[in-house]
Amino acid sequence: MFTLLQKESRAPATCPGPASTQDLDSNYGDGLERECSRKPDQKGIINLGTSENKLCFDLLSRRLSQSDMLRVEPSLLQYPDWRGHQFLREEVARFLSFYCKRPTPLKPENVVVLNGCASLFSALATVLCEVGEAFLIPTPYYGAITQHVYLYGHVRLVCVYLDSEVTGLDTRPFQLTVERLEMALQRANSEGVKVKGLILINPHNPLGDIYSPGELRDYLEFAKRHELHVMVDEVYMLSVFEKSAAYCSVLSLEGLPDPQRTHVMWATSKDFGMSGLRFGTLYTENRDVATAVASLCRYHGLSGLVQYQMAQLLRDRDWINQVYLPENHARLKAAHTYVAGELRAMGIPFLSRGAGFFIWVDLRKFLPEATFKEEMLLWRRFLDNKVLLSCGKTFECKEPGWFRLVFSDKAHRLCLGMQRVRQVLGGKSQVAEEPRSCQTQEPRSQRR
Amino acid sequence: MFTLLQKESRAPATCPGPASTQDLDSNYGDGLERECSRKPDQKGIINLGTSENKLCFDLLSRRLSQSDMLRVEPSLLQYPDWRGHQFLREEVARFLSFYCKRPTPLKPENVVVLNGCASLFSALATVLCEVGEAFLIPTPYYGAITQHVYLYGHVRLVCVYLDSEVTGLDTRPFQLTVERLEMALQRANSEGVKVKGLILINPHNPLGDIYSPGELRDYLEFAKRHELHVMVDEVYMLSVFEKSAAYCSVLSLEGLPDPQRTHVMWATSKDFGMSGLRFGTLYTENRDVATAVASLCRYHGLSGLVQYQMAQLLRDRDWINQVYLPENHARLKAAHTYVAGELRAMGIPFLSRGAGFFIWVDLRKFLPEATFKEEMLLWRRFLDNKVLLSCGKTFECKEPGWFRLVFSDKAHRLCLGMQRVRQVLGGKSQVAEEPRSCQTQEPRSQRR
Repeated sequence: MFTLLQKESRAPATCPGPASTQDLDSNYGDGLERECSRKPDQKGIINLGTSENKLCFDLLSRRLSQSDMLRVEPSLLQYPDWRGHQFLREEVARFLSFYCKRPTPLKPENVVVLNGCASLFSALATVLCEVGEAFLIPTPYYGAITQHVYLYGHVRLVCVYLDSEVTGLDTRPFQLTVERLEMALQRANSEGVKVKGLILINPHNPLGDIYSPGELRDYLEFAKRHELHVMVDEVYMLSVFEKSAAYCSVLSLEGLPDPQRTHVMWATSKDFGMSGLRFGTLYTENRDVATAVASLCRYHGLSGLVQYQMAQLLRDRDWINQVYLPENHARLKAAHTYVAGELRAMGIPFLSRGAGFFIWVDLRKFLPEATFKEEMLLWRRFLDNKVLLSCGKTFECKEPGWFRLVFSDKAHRLCLGMQRVRQVLGGKSQVAEEPRSCQTQEPRSQRR
Repeated sequence: MFTLLQKESRAPATCPGPASTQDLDSNYGDGLERECSRKPDQKGIINLGTSENKLCFDLLSRRLSQSDMLRVEPSLLQYPDWRGHQFLREEVARFLSFYCKRPTPLKPENVVVLNGCASLFSALATVLCEVGEAFLIPTPYYGAITQHVYLYGHVRLVCVYLDSEVTGLDTRPFQLTVERLEMALQRANSEGVKVKGLILINPHNPLGDIYSPGELRDYLEFAKRHELHVMVDEVYMLSVFEKSAAYCSVLSLEGLPDPQRTHVMWATSKDFGMSGLRFGTLYTENRDVATAVASLCRYHGLSGLVQYQMAQLLRDRDWINQVYLPENHARLKAAHTYVAGELRAMGIPFLSRGAGFFIWVDLRKFLPEATFKEEMLLWRRFLDNKVLLSCGKTFECKEPGWFRLVFSDKAHRLCLGMQRVRQVLGGKSQVAEEPRSCQTQEPRSQRR
């Protein structure tokens, strides 16, 4: 009985992190109901662990509250096409064509919409694999994917372990190479694990890395050689806030190596800061996969009213290009600059590539021993000091001591959070007594 | 590869019916987009197969378009409590307490909300069973449940076959008895099938039956004796349009035999005629089950904005009690009266108990032989004549020749549909040449 609980306990263990702590202190703010009234103060926990963008609720609330967002038609109240309403799939195709810089227009018939990328991982795993089969995934990676592919699909992840060591001029920490992919695949094969696909996250969570077009093509060619499906998670594609960072969507590549096995995921949860809206989308040229995923969409459907709202949002290019994206990027950059400055002041090394909501922080020198037990103890010390971070173990990082720190939050919470981080690390490193000035948000005038 | 397709082919076969035909002609109407512009006419297929209530879009559109329905708060855009926002679970508990005539108030902590009852069946099956285990279900039954419990959960249904023969004064056609339940359970046990639960649908789909409090208690006592979970699907509980029909929700029973194994399902899809809104809810006193289902709700989540809308709708008792329910019931009754009259005029026997959107029609005398092949041929003749019905095989009915006919549609479509039914059956029975008058809709003044 209660199979799920047993199943969960059999799934790869994760330490507390984004999957299990997302509700912590995530509902403060403007106060709709009881749950919104918990204002963070000196007593509350500051959540720098959950990857949400809390910088643009003002812009989003204003746009989503406009009268064009509430339209109730009979067709929206009836059973939908489970792939999503045609008008929305057309809009998604146009949107992705434009923002992914697709050479030729994407086709609505290759689009499936559903209630978020967690569901999409679950459905794709179920569709592409038999029970017990596996996907390759480079580590560290967004740990919730372990559950997404396992809980319903019983699909395992085979880790491609990367490390922080830089081995040459052209390399960076935790760099994914085809050699690593080949090794992991061979090891899985030798252990009798049937690998059916590869998961890529780009921009990367938690590294913030962006794959170059050449890298992307190398990974895709590797997959093609081994007849592996590739799921490309691009949920941070519009959250590249550093102008110098040149992002390349897999959909922009001319002549994809294996389009029938390349499946692209996007959602509004990150790029439009709306994890609670539950909207995600699949783009695949493989009609069998699209049809099979769609037949599961009965369990992952989103309201017709929300489908209408999303179509309205995605088609409003003026607002997206002239209001939302520039403002969002400016705020993300300001918040990032503040946290990066704090970390530098504390002498803490970190990685950050100008994309995403987080900084991958190297706290190895704060561990008495290089063990995950010590990492957990440090994580616990942060929590005891009322600041939540995500520890590297959550991301299956093989080196103890890395943490993901989310910076996409309002200045007053961010400052308080960083102050608490400093207090915890204070005994181990040089830290300022008082928090530095943190004028990070709303650097530009609010429009619309 | 494409496991799902293989899985589907291994699932119990269903003939075309509600699960596979729901998109047919379901998007006519007031025309939002291309898909809404297909107006039914002499050329289109009239869908009397999909159980949707199309009688009250005017009332629903007006209510859902009111300005109180569009509220955008940061908490609604952030990761939710996966069981559903607290404010909505409180409203659901109040709503069910009132409409289920619960002696004591239901508790919000026993409520889980998600995107429809299809998802709820899927999650409950996964949570309560191991792969290959089974639920008992009396036949005929809403056939899509077969997929709901199988596609993700790999759970089978063990049919409790009922028949139309009336064996005594106190019996009715397709009556469920404890003896039948015991026999089916014994047979399953003897075949090595592990049965973990029982599914009850009340009001019943497709029979329209309503279980009496005594019957309900008997079934629940049976389940308790055998330590079976009971899933009670009450999605038609407010669609009892016949005043003389006394409906009794399982939640109204004092002293439930086994509350820890009794799980109640409700949704807005039927009772509020909004299949496309995707809102369903579980009520269970079993905290382990609620927690386990909630952990799967990440894959069945609904938008925070919709959660807000549903809370607004459910708390508007004035509108529900004084506008929506009386008008909806009057329209359902008028449509039912029309179709029942047509069937009587054709000399066709049928069952109907004053609940639901459908009439269970006995067309056995129109089959040259009592086989499912002949049933399918008749179903096909209807479709060739551009009217869609659901055949009994779809509901695992053991007697060939029964059909479910949905009457909850606008007069012009209903009349055309019945005219086509008559044309098909014309050679076999006495039928009128011209359709009878069908003033079935909007019998009362529109309010609000």
